[in-house]
Formats: sequence, structure tokens, C-alpha cells
Amino acid sequence: MPSIESQALGLLYESKARRMKANPNLDRATILSLYEEEQSCAAEAPGITYENVNVRGRPGIWASPVGLLLQSNENQQSVIIYIHGGGFSLGSPNSHRKLAAHLGRAANANVLILDYRLAPEHPFPAALDDLLAAYEWLLQERGFPASKIATAGDSAGGNLATALVLRIKQEEAGRLSLPAAIAAFSPWYNLENNLDSMTRNDQYDKLVHRPQLDELAAAYVARTGLSLRDPLVSPIHADLRGLPPVYIAIGTHETLQDDSEGFAELARNAGVDVELERAQEQQHVHVFMAGRAAEADVTIQNVGRWLQRKFSST
Amino acid sequence: MPSIESQALGLLYESKARRMKANPNLDRATILSLYEEEQSCAAEAPGITYENVNVRGRPGIWASPVGLLLQSNENQQSVIIYIHGGGFSLGSPNSHRKLAAHLGRAANANVLILDYRLAPEHPFPAALDDLLAAYEWLLQERGFPASKIATAGDSAGGNLATALVLRIKQEEAGRLSLPAAIAAFSPWYNLENNLDSMTRNDQYDKLVHRPQLDELAAAYVARTGLSLRDPLVSPIHADLRGLPPVYIAIGTHETLQDDSEGFAELARNAGVDVELERAQEQQHVHVFMAGRAAEADVTIQNVGRWLQRKFSST
Repeated sequence: MPSIESQALGLLYESKARRMKANPNLDRATILSLYEEEQSCAAEAPGITYENVNVRGRPGIWASPVGLLLQSNENQQSVIIYIHGGGFSLGSPNSHRKLAAHLGRAANANVLILDYRLAPEHPFPAALDDLLAAYEWLLQERGFPASKIATAGDSAGGNLATALVLRIKQEEAGRLSLPAAIAAFSPWYNLENNLDSMTRNDQYDKLVHRPQLDELAAAYVARTGLSLRDPLVSPIHADLRGLPPVYIAIGTHETLQDDSEGFAELARNAGVDVELERAQEQQHVHVFMAGRAAEADVTIQNVGRWLQRKFSST
Repeated sequence: MPSIESQALGLLYESKARRMKANPNLDRATILSLYEEEQSCAAEAPGITYENVNVRGRPGIWASPVGLLLQSNENQQSVIIYIHGGGFSLGSPNSHRKLAAHLGRAANANVLILDYRLAPEHPFPAALDDLLAAYEWLLQERGFPASKIATAGDSAGGNLATALVLRIKQEEAGRLSLPAAIAAFSPWYNLENNLDSMTRNDQYDKLVHRPQLDELAAAYVARTGLSLRDPLVSPIHADLRGLPPVYIAIGTHETLQDDSEGFAELARNAGVDVELERAQEQQHVHVFMAGRAAEADVTIQNVGRWLQRKFSST
């Protein structure tokens, strides 16, 4: 049985779905505000400071464990680019600030939470362009070596955390080194939304269902002429050889479960170092409950320790 | 002319009012989410850490400047009880976290942002009961002397920051010492809403208008049998003699301007040490723009320096 605390996430998802159904004509600004409600789930992560940063024209939040502030040499520090979810169209650094801070605390790393451009106003590849610029900013302006940088994200942010590295591997090969690791919580890897768990877990998942996903996917590739099977749109179709280590955490009540299962198998077959953690009976992005639910904290600690090993091994 | 940055607050207020008018039947949970949008106004305050605390059964956020964390003796530190606004019915520690953090940074003090109970579910005196419990918690469990505690708040929170001290002065006299100071941003001191600025500034104020205030006032005293002229409901009717120093900041475009003007005059006549800062052409709670608009930062710095003097003079 999931903990009482972790069940609060499902209740929030149900409440939001009910209210959006009762008000079908809400404007975009108000829908964006409803998607900020996830910020309420996590507890504040102790010992983290925050600062707004300008990352080559895009806003972001820079979160730092206090212990790192006291270290004189930023070059020995690590940093996680944390990429919020929200179907490429919703979410913000604010909605994911506390989740990202818990991860930074567990990994003893700084976290950059980028306010990347969203669809439908800015379809593919605007988000990846912004994230690539942030990666170059970390390397060139902040002086972090690639071996001390990881990407991480949830849902569509898990997709982007992976697609960013695929893009660096393919298009920027030789010009930019790959980051040390990728961490993905409930990643959305297959924008065709046609894997078995999409129907198998539909009755259990309290947020993510195919009709909405199909709309979000269409908005993401709108006006691009790209197929939903493009490897940077759906990393489940990418050549994964040479990818850095990947940690994936997925709830077994998720319609997106097989995105993770399928990707993990493909990555292993391509020789990638992959960890797949299945959080029993947990909802989409169960780590939103960081600092409150035991299941979220277990995953955050697992990923944090794993990231620390990847940062120190390079 | 107000700065471009400070004008963003008025634009947010107008956007929210427009959307609530277009969706007149929004449920309470969604309206509460709309009132979280103010959180987006302030920049993150650098060098502040946050922790959730349980204050005799009520949740709160404890914000601390990093410099204070490194001091060994908490008893030499100061603390501000920050009381968020929202007409006694709306708002949260989250919506006011960054504003409160900027104030703590300017005053070099810890900040407790209490999640006090809201009307209409919990009318007067539930909020004051929670705040009084928090004050006793600071004195008795956290070991702060009264001379190192200040109350602060905005709008209805400015009312509560003052009413709490009046209640301590009247009902707890001899049992509890008074705090060192009170800071109020755009306080709502007169719940009859019948002072001259209510009409004089109605055309300039982009958020606060009498019909909504009358509803919020009625909800606050509902089922209590209390008059809106009760001194703990409308501090403008209180006996202010013996109150600690008060700093009030008000925008000259506010319908609530005369709440501040009237209270400041009464307090001065009662021998209270009062500062009244008029922020030219600013909107309700202009300090929401802390870290972004010059006008907000000037006020935050003024109040922070003033609080530091009050803490050190006792």
C-alpha cells in the first residue's frame, strides 16, 4: 500500500482534473496557475539557497546547498540541470523548485532550474535550444567541466533531459563533451502514446491519460513537420549507443510506465549503464512528495547517491 | 512615474480580475490558486534557507539568512512573524515566501511565515489564536526574548500583525511581554471600508475595491456577533497607547491609503513611535515586487534597517 502521505499526490491530481472538467473554458494563464499547485506537495528542502539567474536570455533559479557555498572553488562542484515537466506546455521553475532542491541536496550539487520556452507558443526545438544554451553557459561561463554536469527532469522534462544529451551527442559531437549522467522521473519517451501501459494502467493513473497526451504531443511538434517518431521528439526511437549512465524512476500505477520499461531495455541493449527503479503503486512523478512521503524520499536518496558516484567517477 | 518593473504588479492584478470576472463560478480551490500568482512577482532572495516547521499544530515556513545559521547562539538572533495578506480568506506562506525572505534579509532576522487559519471556514479570532500561539512558541519553545521579535504583514496581514500586539497588550497583559516592533505593508485597518481613499483612489487601485472588501469583512466576522468596529477587527478603533513602534508603508494609488493615514495619526496622538512611508503611485502591497522593482526594494531596505534598530535598542 502506498503511504498516506504519497496518496496526497493522487488526490491533488484528481481535484485538479475535476475542476478543469467543471470549467472547460479556462484561459491559459489560469490553467498555468492550476499547474503550479504541484509546488505545494514537497516540503522545503533545508539548507538550500536560491537565486534568480539569467541564462543567455532565459530566466532560471540557481539552487545551492549551503555547504557548497562555503567551498571556495566552484570548479570542484557539481551541477544538475533540472528540467520541469508539464507536457512541454505547462509547469515552471517555481512548480518544481522544492523537488529540484531535494535532488540537489541528496546529490550535494547545485541545481539550475531553467525556465525554458513552452509550447504551444514555442514548439520543438525551442526548449532544446534553450537547454543547449544553458549547458554551454555552464561549461563556458560558469566553468563546470562536463563530467560534473548531469541532466535531470520529470515527465516531459525527463524526455528533454535525455533528448538534450542525444542532441549534444549527435549534432554537437566533438564540439561539446557529454554530461556525466541523466536522471529521469516518470519520463515521457514515446509521444505516440501507444505502449501497453497506456491502457493497462489507465484505471490507476490519476493524471496522465492518452487524449491529453495526444494533444500535448501535437502541440509540441506543431508547425515543425516532424514525425512523433523523430528521435529527439521520442527518445525511444533514438540510437542510444554512447549515452552516459541513466537513472529512471517510474511508478507502477503510471500510464507512462512502458515508456521507461521500453527505453531501459533499449538502452541496456545499446550498452548504456541503466538503472530502472519501479516505485510500487506510485503516481506520476511521485517525487513531487519529496520531504513528505517516504516513497519520494527513497527515490530522491537513491538518485542522489547515484549521481554523486557518477560525478566522482569521472 | 512608477518604474516599468513595479507596473508589472498592476498588470498581474488586472489580469487576475479580468479572469475571475470571465469565470464567475470558480471553486474555492481554484481561486486560492489564482491568489498564489503573487508569488511570481518577487525575485528569490539570495542567501536564505527555508524549512517547514510545525507551530503548535499549524504549519509554517522558517526562513533564515545563511549568516545567522553560522551563529551559534540563536538567542542573540531576531525573528519576524510574517503574516501574509489575502483578506483573511486567501493567500498562503508560499504566495508570500519571497517577499518575507527579502524582509528577513534586510533586517538580518529569521522569519516565521505562519499558515494561519482562513475565513470563511475559520472566522475571527481563529487567525489571531494561531498567531498568538506562534508568538508563545517563539518565546517559550524557541527561546527568543520578546525584544527580539517583531510582527509584520501586508494587507489583512498588516491588520493581524497589529491586532496580535493589541491582543497581547490587552488580554495577555502581565503574562506576555510585547514584541519590539510592528511593520505593516498596505494594512487593512478599517473593515467598514468607508474612509475617503476608498472612493478617491478607486480609479487608480487595480486590485482592491469596496464590494470585495465588504464581502471579505463580512466573512471574517461571520457567526461572531462582532461589530466591524471591534478594536481587534478594525485596529483603527483600538486604544493604541503603549503600542511598540510601528512602520507603515502605503502606496498613494491605494483605496486603503487612508487606513494607514488615519491609523498613523491616531497612533502618534497616542504617543506611539510611528513611521509612515508613502510610496508614490504604487499599488497595493508594492513590496511584492521585492528584488525586481526599485520602489519595492527601497521600502524593504527602509523597513529592514528600521527593524534592526528596534531589535538592537531593546
